[in-house]
Amino acid sequence: MLAEIISIGDEILIGQTINTNAGFLASRLNATGIAVGRVSVVGDQAEQIREMLGEAGKRAGLVVVTGGLGPTRDDITKAVICDFFSTRLVFDETVLADNTAFFARRGLELTELNRRQAFVPESAAVIRNPFGTAPGLWMEKGSIIYLFMPGVPHEMKHMVDSTLLPRLKALAGGHHIVHKTLLTQGIGESFLADLIAGWEEALPSGLKLAYLPSPGIVKLRLSAAGPDEVMLHRQIDRAMEELRALIPQYVWGEDDQRLEEVIGQILRGKGMSLSTAESCTGGYIAHRITSVPGSSAWFRGSVVAYDNEVKTGLLGLSPALLQKHGAVSREVVECMAREVRLRLGTDASIAVSGIAGPDGGTPGKPVGTVWIAVAGAEGVRSKLFRFGDERERNIVRAAIAALGMLKNMLDPSDEKQDNLTQANKA
Amino acid sequence: MLAEIISIGDEILIGQTINTNAGFLASRLNATGIAVGRVSVVGDQAEQIREMLGEAGKRAGLVVVTGGLGPTRDDITKAVICDFFSTRLVFDETVLADNTAFFARRGLELTELNRRQAFVPESAAVIRNPFGTAPGLWMEKGSIIYLFMPGVPHEMKHMVDSTLLPRLKALAGGHHIVHKTLLTQGIGESFLADLIAGWEEALPSGLKLAYLPSPGIVKLRLSAAGPDEVMLHRQIDRAMEELRALIPQYVWGEDDQRLEEVIGQILRGKGMSLSTAESCTGGYIAHRITSVPGSSAWFRGSVVAYDNEVKTGLLGLSPALLQKHGAVSREVVECMAREVRLRLGTDASIAVSGIAGPDGGTPGKPVGTVWIAVAGAEGVRSKLFRFGDERERNIVRAAIAALGMLKNMLDPSDEKQDNLTQANKA
Repeated sequence: MLAEIISIGDEILIGQTINTNAGFLASRLNATGIAVGRVSVVGDQAEQIREMLGEAGKRAGLVVVTGGLGPTRDDITKAVICDFFSTRLVFDETVLADNTAFFARRGLELTELNRRQAFVPESAAVIRNPFGTAPGLWMEKGSIIYLFMPGVPHEMKHMVDSTLLPRLKALAGGHHIVHKTLLTQGIGESFLADLIAGWEEALPSGLKLAYLPSPGIVKLRLSAAGPDEVMLHRQIDRAMEELRALIPQYVWGEDDQRLEEVIGQILRGKGMSLSTAESCTGGYIAHRITSVPGSSAWFRGSVVAYDNEVKTGLLGLSPALLQKHGAVSREVVECMAREVRLRLGTDASIAVSGIAGPDGGTPGKPVGTVWIAVAGAEGVRSKLFRFGDERERNIVRAAIAALGMLKNMLDPSDEKQDNLTQANKA
Repeated sequence: MLAEIISIGDEILIGQTINTNAGFLASRLNATGIAVGRVSVVGDQAEQIREMLGEAGKRAGLVVVTGGLGPTRDDITKAVICDFFSTRLVFDETVLADNTAFFARRGLELTELNRRQAFVPESAAVIRNPFGTAPGLWMEKGSIIYLFMPGVPHEMKHMVDSTLLPRLKALAGGHHIVHKTLLTQGIGESFLADLIAGWEEALPSGLKLAYLPSPGIVKLRLSAAGPDEVMLHRQIDRAMEELRALIPQYVWGEDDQRLEEVIGQILRGKGMSLSTAESCTGGYIAHRITSVPGSSAWFRGSVVAYDNEVKTGLLGLSPALLQKHGAVSREVVECMAREVRLRLGTDASIAVSGIAGPDGGTPGKPVGTVWIAVAGAEGVRSKLFRFGDERERNIVRAAIAALGMLKNMLDPSDEKQDNLTQANKA
């Protein structure tokens, strides 16, 4: 079974909204064994939508459509559906009851606009939506299945995960798609490619390798597809083990893991706690950490010392130290790591001080200069990084580098070689 | 001139990477007066790519393609281009020199893999890439222009902004597309639609309205297109002024503005400074604030008090207060706001304490319960919010609500009615 995804919405075509829905749907479809052949985005125009529905149905057996089902005037998908499927809108009591209850839970009455959401195409099977007023619609045209869902991400996601997954699994008919990703940090894409060239050359023909660079991280993904899920996993696992053995010092995780999750697992396992002191990352490291559910078990807090007075006040750094070395220096960042660890009473700590840009650079310390320190019972380690010119990338790269240093301090078994210096330049 | 965007990459089709490139390109094309008719994503397979190039060229005059130009084996776009355009790869000395210099700046030698990046299709005009090794390619087939760029976002973005914009503008041939967006906070989409129904009804026929809900924020966008840019702006500005007058208490900004930017402008204007004390938002508010370039002029820092000991330690809250009311309470959050303002010596402050989930909820204080306080010279204001079950959404909605409260405290002119309570439920 091959699927296509169609996202409807002018907001995507003009670049106002990023198409996250298609990504979510693609990953869920893959997980059920259904490959996605194409993703398309069209605007809120009847002719465009109708044409797209027809085209996609010629290539794919399943067409998943999101968007345009809202209560406001710009949402026209339902009218197009009636036309395309030669059906008409009928009033659905279940949807009305769901929507009345949805509003009642919020202490509100159903408005006329939302009452109209209970009109659905006659030939559709309704998929209930507990988080919004637009129901999903499962429809068929000949042998092609069309699935329509609202474009509001959390409504659509809940519909897929709570109702649709078993039905999609059944459609896949025993076909399996397996992806496995190794996550690396501290080395550029082309250097990695050179290190693993021999292994890549010798990969079995059914395995496909992809390189996915993002700020501070390169992901290596192996994919395979076929009827025998156990065999696919075995093949991929074997190749991954070989790959991991080639580059242990750069690998920090697998698949969807986040570096902060891996760190959380290590800290939990050791019964340790963490704090951060952040200057140029401005709370971003704490935010990444506290995005991990359950992080309150091992993360105590952070001092975001954006201003030097906060460094002297809350962290107790001496003004003389700041004066002598400057805020962006080994001495200051090490002191920040030590102080936040002491003051928040944690086992480990991270400190970052740098120049994110666009302002604040000097010839000696240009924008992108970042000092990072990690502290533990054994002492403090620090390192100088030179990132680029872009503020947002600098913040992200500094956070990833800091988390990587912490991971290496906590879990030194992987640190076989310290050729990070070379790699960090790439 | 109508454009289509094609993004190449299995990583997008399997949902591993979100297609942010298409969004950037769409907004830049719109800004130059070129409408985007469709966005498509295809995998790294020669047949798929070739088919897609042909199809898009039948519908559009400009086809912008990203991805598949990297140095590794999974990047096959250049081979497909040669086939599609009936041309061959030739060695380009400029690209080689650029790439040699790119590596030299990092203290590295050009690897063989990257040397090969200097092979480009013979009929292509090369667009130089100062941030990576894959040059862009401007090609023509009959009257259709094809533009190929690498998929690495910052490389592609720089190519567009530094080299391509004037050429695209010329292609638009005097056609203009104007979008204007009003940003609201504190009211749901359908309530907003009811409030502005009469205005929407009376909109001139050339203006198109769209509702764009996202966590905590609803955007209202007006779009128009035509040859007379001044007239388009005048029409849209007039409609926007009328709209703004209908819902002043919910409007906080325009277009791409972020709430934290608007706050920064107000604080700068008044010569005021800000600090935050964050529990359940875990540094996310500080991160949003410090993502604004120049925020160091008005933001001093944050205490991320994830653990109660940090609330008593760094913020000096009394353990008895925490014991009596619980960390998620009016008393505690007001005290956090007062203390962080005092201790960081700022004019204003924000404090948040809540239960982001998935754990930590109780029958009296379920997941999604969040107390927010803002403090200034006039005192402290606080408010209770009940968000939903999802951790990430709760963190985002709490941050937006907190920034919204601060904005209203700093700029009370817009607070004509306080019907926020009703609206926040929606």
